[in-house]
Amino acid sequence: MPRSVITLTTDFGPSSPYVAQMKGVILAIHSDVELVDVTHAVPHQQILAGAVALVDVYHHFPPGTIHIAVVDPGVGTNRAIALAEIDGHFFVAPDNGLLGLVARRTPPSRIVRVEACEFWNQSISHTFHGRDIMAPVAAHLARGIEFARFGPSQPVVQQLDVPDAVVTTNRAEGTVLTVDSFGNLATNLDRDMLPRSVSELTLQIDGHAEQVVPFVATYAQRPADQVVSLVSSSRRIEIAVVNGNASRQLGVVPGSQITLQW
Amino acid sequence: MPRSVITLTTDFGPSSPYVAQMKGVILAIHSDVELVDVTHAVPHQQILAGAVALVDVYHHFPPGTIHIAVVDPGVGTNRAIALAEIDGHFFVAPDNGLLGLVARRTPPSRIVRVEACEFWNQSISHTFHGRDIMAPVAAHLARGIEFARFGPSQPVVQQLDVPDAVVTTNRAEGTVLTVDSFGNLATNLDRDMLPRSVSELTLQIDGHAEQVVPFVATYAQRPADQVVSLVSSSRRIEIAVVNGNASRQLGVVPGSQITLQW
Amino acid sequence: MPRSVITLTTDFGPSSPYVAQMKGVILAIHSDVELVDVTHAVPHQQILAGAVALVDVYHHFPPGTIHIAVVDPGVGTNRAIALAEIDGHFFVAPDNGLLGLVARRTPPSRIVRVEACEFWNQSISHTFHGRDIMAPVAAHLARGIEFARFGPSQPVVQQLDVPDAVVTTNRAEGTVLTVDSFGNLATNLDRDMLPRSVSELTLQIDGHAEQVVPFVATYAQRPADQVVSLVSSSRRIEIAVVNGNASRQLGVVPGSQITLQW
Repeated sequence: MPRSVITLTTDFGPSSPYVAQMKGVILAIHSDVELVDVTHAVPHQQILAGAVALVDVYHHFPPGTIHIAVVDPGVGTNRAIALAEIDGHFFVAPDNGLLGLVARRTPPSRIVRVEACEFWNQSISHTFHGRDIMAPVAAHLARGIEFARFGPSQPVVQQLDVPDAVVTTNRAEGTVLTVDSFGNLATNLDRDMLPRSVSELTLQIDGHAEQVVPFVATYAQRPADQVVSLVSSSRRIEIAVVNGNASRQLGVVPGSQITLQW
Repeated sequence: MPRSVITLTTDFGPSSPYVAQMKGVILAIHSDVELVDVTHAVPHQQILAGAVALVDVYHHFPPGTIHIAVVDPGVGTNRAIALAEIDGHFFVAPDNGLLGLVARRTPPSRIVRVEACEFWNQSISHTFHGRDIMAPVAAHLARGIEFARFGPSQPVVQQLDVPDAVVTTNRAEGTVLTVDSFGNLATNLDRDMLPRSVSELTLQIDGHAEQVVPFVATYAQRPADQVVSLVSSSRRIEIAVVNGNASRQLGVVPGSQITLQW
Repeated sequence: MPRSVITLTTDFGPSSPYVAQMKGVILAIHSDVELVDVTHAVPHQQILAGAVALVDVYHHFPPGTIHIAVVDPGVGTNRAIALAEIDGHFFVAPDNGLLGLVARRTPPSRIVRVEACEFWNQSISHTFHGRDIMAPVAAHLARGIEFARFGPSQPVVQQLDVPDAVVTTNRAEGTVLTVDSFGNLATNLDRDMLPRSVSELTLQIDGHAEQVVPFVATYAQRPADQVVSLVSSSRRIEIAVVNGNASRQLGVVPGSQITLQW
């Protein structure tokens, strides 16, 4: 049997010792795992950004990978924790929308509400269920505990309040989901929503003035400082500034509404 | 035999290539290890902050884990390097106080001063003993070299200049040890120093004006921007601002004196 | 057979989810690897800084380690990707100079231009060859695919536009290669270029005023705020400010010309 892979996605900040506490808990229960950080730089308590990181990353891992995600503003309240099997992968996360985009991409095949405390740490803090509940649940799943033993079945995971993209014959309306470390804007618009032959687009963000931007294959095709649209490595439509920062230059933040016409 | 776990705690900065040099040295000596980063964001040369990261993290790992810690302003001088067994774990670190809080929590069962250079790199730099001495010592320990062979026994590790907390029937005086990436203040005051029934506290920091703050179970129980006290996931008394930054709002830095009355 | 080690060096930013996508791709092809981050904080698109990180780190790893490096401003253009065996290690990188310093240190023993697309991901993005080509090539190499099968042989890798250091009997002229997170300046001048007995140096940077600085063994030998020269842990001549930031204090950036006289 190959080693299990467990990934971690959190908003704890890069190099936070809280991440290492979770890894220690996992290794103390089951040492034969490969631990991989997805990101710990999800902006603090921004569930949507965590959901985007998860949906863009998980499917590159081998089937059977266990993904732990912790963006958990409701920790210590009665929000549930979900364990879900989706698209051949396993996910452990607060049931607050964090699994929403993964579950929109592929309907979950099974979900339990995590309640069986015999698989948790002995002492449960009020502020860190990632370490005290989610990490041990993932480790016990990796060592072979049956999925159904972690809690009662539930039909769906919590969804996010992001409108679906609206596409007509010459127009697509969507949402800016995230801004990456280069300032590139990732949207919920997909390459396949646009005509195959498109070479430029009329871009409007949050109702501001329209501008015509080229639709390019790579950053390197245009001079520095030009606003361009392109397909990201995750098939999303992105807005970027060549060798620059689109978020700063255009004043755009996650949640901004974006309209493309062609 | 399960794979050894080796953790790394340094002040090299997130994603520093110096960390990878240490990992390369370890893997070149003993490849069957799981390497886990605790944090590399210990503020530069702040031994106390490194000591807090270690003591809050180590005990979550399985017994037998080897923890390397490098916050080493005296590198290249004649400060010693210690290898210690404490609470079933192993620690390799400059003997400058970095192991002080771990050793206050549980008395070390054995300590050697690291002197046996046959277990070091062949060439020793003046500026990077983490790579040239501590990493190879940890790797040789992981592959089974006897503890006592790394150097002569010594009775204690260097302690830190942090006063112990002073607790009376209605008052606790302590120290702010660290500020995390959310601006939360962690103190050396422990939950068990306060009465079980306490629901609010009178807080005074560095002799400034007193304020009454609620003692809450979770961040989510109070409105945004309120100053609260709570128990951290490491059982420490913390001061936080709900959805805000306590360090900035209160002007507090590590080392500030904190008094709680009830 | 010991587990393969694969390292990753990129300019994606610390904790970028793009790194995790590469790791997922690798683990999906070959799970029995140890993945080690060298750094993901190479300044965006600065090939020289990536080349320095690689050459300073790779040789600490065990022979046979596979090093993936992605600083790739030309992604999506027709720049080549190289797979090279150098000094007993393997390197997969865009052939844009990123392997230049490693290849100056030791002549490559064999190089192929990566063209055999049966070892790539099925779908190749225009913007992320690190994930779609380099990661799977490294994983297939780790699982035993023959070196020569990845593409046609080529004689050399692309070099960098960094002049070699010029050394005379009382003078060395070189280049500031990088600035680390402490503000220390690393140069392409090596300890062995200076007389063994030197104790102070006359330093000139970019033609500005000369200053005499001590040549010290460790930071701890001098008072705070003094400019010093010393030998880095990679044998490079470094300029540092004791407990300070040399880059800010001296106004120096990578590429600055540095002259030392004795």
